[in-house]
Amino acid sequence: MITVQEAEKLILDSIGEIETETVSIDAALGRCLREPILADRALPPFDRATLDGIAINSSSYNTGQRKFKVAGTAPAGAVQQELPDVKSCLEIMTGAPLPRLADCVVKIEDIEIKNDIAHLPDGLQLDFHTAVHSQGSDAKAGKELLAPQRLVTAKEIAIAASVGKSELVVSKSPHIAIVSTGDELVSIDQAPEPHQIRRSNDITLAAALKSSGFASVELVHIADDQEQIETKLRELMTRCDSLILTGGISKGKYDYIPETLAKLGVSIRFQWVSQRPGKPMWYGQFSRDGNRLPVFALPGNPVSCFTCLRRYAIPALEKWVGLPKSQPVYAKLEHDLTFKPELTLFLPAVADPRPSGELWVKPALFNTSGDFVSVAQTDGFIELPKARKVFPEGEAFQFYPWPR
Amino acid sequence: MITVQEAEKLILDSIGEIETETVSIDAALGRCLREPILADRALPPFDRATLDGIAINSSSYNTGQRKFKVAGTAPAGAVQQELPDVKSCLEIMTGAPLPRLADCVVKIEDIEIKNDIAHLPDGLQLDFHTAVHSQGSDAKAGKELLAPQRLVTAKEIAIAASVGKSELVVSKSPHIAIVSTGDELVSIDQAPEPHQIRRSNDITLAAALKSSGFASVELVHIADDQEQIETKLRELMTRCDSLILTGGISKGKYDYIPETLAKLGVSIRFQWVSQRPGKPMWYGQFSRDGNRLPVFALPGNPVSCFTCLRRYAIPALEKWVGLPKSQPVYAKLEHDLTFKPELTLFLPAVADPRPSGELWVKPALFNTSGDFVSVAQTDGFIELPKARKVFPEGEAFQFYPWPR
Repeated sequence: MITVQEAEKLILDSIGEIETETVSIDAALGRCLREPILADRALPPFDRATLDGIAINSSSYNTGQRKFKVAGTAPAGAVQQELPDVKSCLEIMTGAPLPRLADCVVKIEDIEIKNDIAHLPDGLQLDFHTAVHSQGSDAKAGKELLAPQRLVTAKEIAIAASVGKSELVVSKSPHIAIVSTGDELVSIDQAPEPHQIRRSNDITLAAALKSSGFASVELVHIADDQEQIETKLRELMTRCDSLILTGGISKGKYDYIPETLAKLGVSIRFQWVSQRPGKPMWYGQFSRDGNRLPVFALPGNPVSCFTCLRRYAIPALEKWVGLPKSQPVYAKLEHDLTFKPELTLFLPAVADPRPSGELWVKPALFNTSGDFVSVAQTDGFIELPKARKVFPEGEAFQFYPWPR
Repeated sequence: MITVQEAEKLILDSIGEIETETVSIDAALGRCLREPILADRALPPFDRATLDGIAINSSSYNTGQRKFKVAGTAPAGAVQQELPDVKSCLEIMTGAPLPRLADCVVKIEDIEIKNDIAHLPDGLQLDFHTAVHSQGSDAKAGKELLAPQRLVTAKEIAIAASVGKSELVVSKSPHIAIVSTGDELVSIDQAPEPHQIRRSNDITLAAALKSSGFASVELVHIADDQEQIETKLRELMTRCDSLILTGGISKGKYDYIPETLAKLGVSIRFQWVSQRPGKPMWYGQFSRDGNRLPVFALPGNPVSCFTCLRRYAIPALEKWVGLPKSQPVYAKLEHDLTFKPELTLFLPAVADPRPSGELWVKPALFNTSGDFVSVAQTDGFIELPKARKVFPEGEAFQFYPWPR
């Protein structure tokens, strides 16, 4: 049995980087950027008014001039104009190019315009480029605005759009098969017999993957029949980029998964991790077209399965698509805890961010590892290391928020 | 000019609750649940083995019996069986119903089976329901497992699926028009003239709304022409549930938006908020079919627009669809700050969660409010109250993460 840290390292070390594809900017949200985004010209491209008002030459004001003849209007979207002379002004709109001979903008609230004469009060602080966003002050042409290997969120869309990238090179989205086994499982809309339960792991994993940015999933349920399992897994391995299995990996008589995966050429990287929940977790890889593709076989117990997905599979998929490791978050325990087994404990907990800037967590006292009812009231889990038995109130441990 | 807190209250107080609709469980992810989810039967529905092993009667073991005849197998998904007598056992798989006469499960690692006899060592701790997830221990039939008015995430999907809800009653998703104006703006794939810039606010707002759970958006760009603006807004008001406008609301000559909205019967709730960025922000509502529908008119400046969307529009939309107010997060300043204007400052900042459980933030020193280039390197903004000018290192303020 290996430790949680060993399991994490074995998985992450085995993961390479998926290929890229070019998609429209609208489709790039939530994907990993794989090209640098450069300024196509200076940003802003011209000296740009940041307020509505009048454009003047500040030296005229600063040498005593208080009345400026309004020679016209400079709207946003019009070509750059020019003051007739440094003693006149143009009305100017936010976003318009600063007229030649002008060097600052006086905001409309500070001006009174009567009969085409703008009257300015004393005491204004007007200098070179007051209320002007100077050409190139955000970036010179050619500057790297966004480095690759980052998540495309709304703000990356803003930058890419502003430099004219209507298409972006991003990581491909792996197509993932979610495979459940277990003869006790019936579909959601079926009335279960007393000894049966409804299948929920597959749809739960699909939702968690989708909200973590992995939307290309298919759900497959197979009976606890070794031949059917083998046939179906062989077919999935020809066309899916990753398999996430749930159930059938423990020591039961009908736990055919590890054996079948081995037979199909999936090389095992590990099974059995010193953790609760999720001890029977299995991980391996298979090769196709020169790529090594990950297979996660998770326990059938719903909470174990969900926890292992969050702790191992999602970070592995994130690495695969090229995202940087997400910043670890730590939270302080709201009460003392004791846990005796020599296992790392993943304990569901309610987040309690405080006005002090500290994150505290209230661990859930849950019934058994099968109890999703209590887990649903929590925000994530804390990881309590296996080397210890006593965890005092106020000590901070790593906190893993659940997928949305 | 009103304060940030007044603006927030005016908006939230004006927002009601959108209607519901019934969608398939797959489509419910990211929506607000609007019905309670009840246990349709006891959870678990039967005494369920939590391990692979043998099912025995613990009193036989505890009175000294160490050899148990294996009378058969109890797989998951099969009907409940019965021990022939309290001195025998059945092999049992995780998830199977505990056989009658048995009261606990002994895990496979503790057993040796030879010639259909299971040999147990001394010293096992076996009691009533050891390794058994007792019927009804998670919930009795009829118990409310999930209350309404919560976000449907993966774990809510797990609960709903387990009780057979293949459809869920959720809030409708408002259809939102994102309207940009500004003659200086050209489309992303167009080569801008020196005095033009590319339109990025609309696609950025669409991305931010989408990643905040509001995917039903349409993008509309209108020239700075009062008649065109009026015609288009009138049409959008007949069929969209909300309008988010960007640009055209300040004091410039061509800022037709507030006037046009008034003409179309949108009643203003406020304009001008003592904040930077985003001072010109405008908010109002219009009536249609007895519903009051929100209109947010945000500044055209990209950073102002994005900040106001995050600070006001997204929380308002979340309230509208019935979600509870999200937990505020606070973060400590990594260095002293001074800000003199009598305005609330929304300052972009990089999050720095520390192993102590504290969240710190490093404020970005950004160029002007138009500088999206620096904003893209931050994780959100902190809100520094307008009543003060000096903000010392180590003090905590509210932190608003950017939409993904």
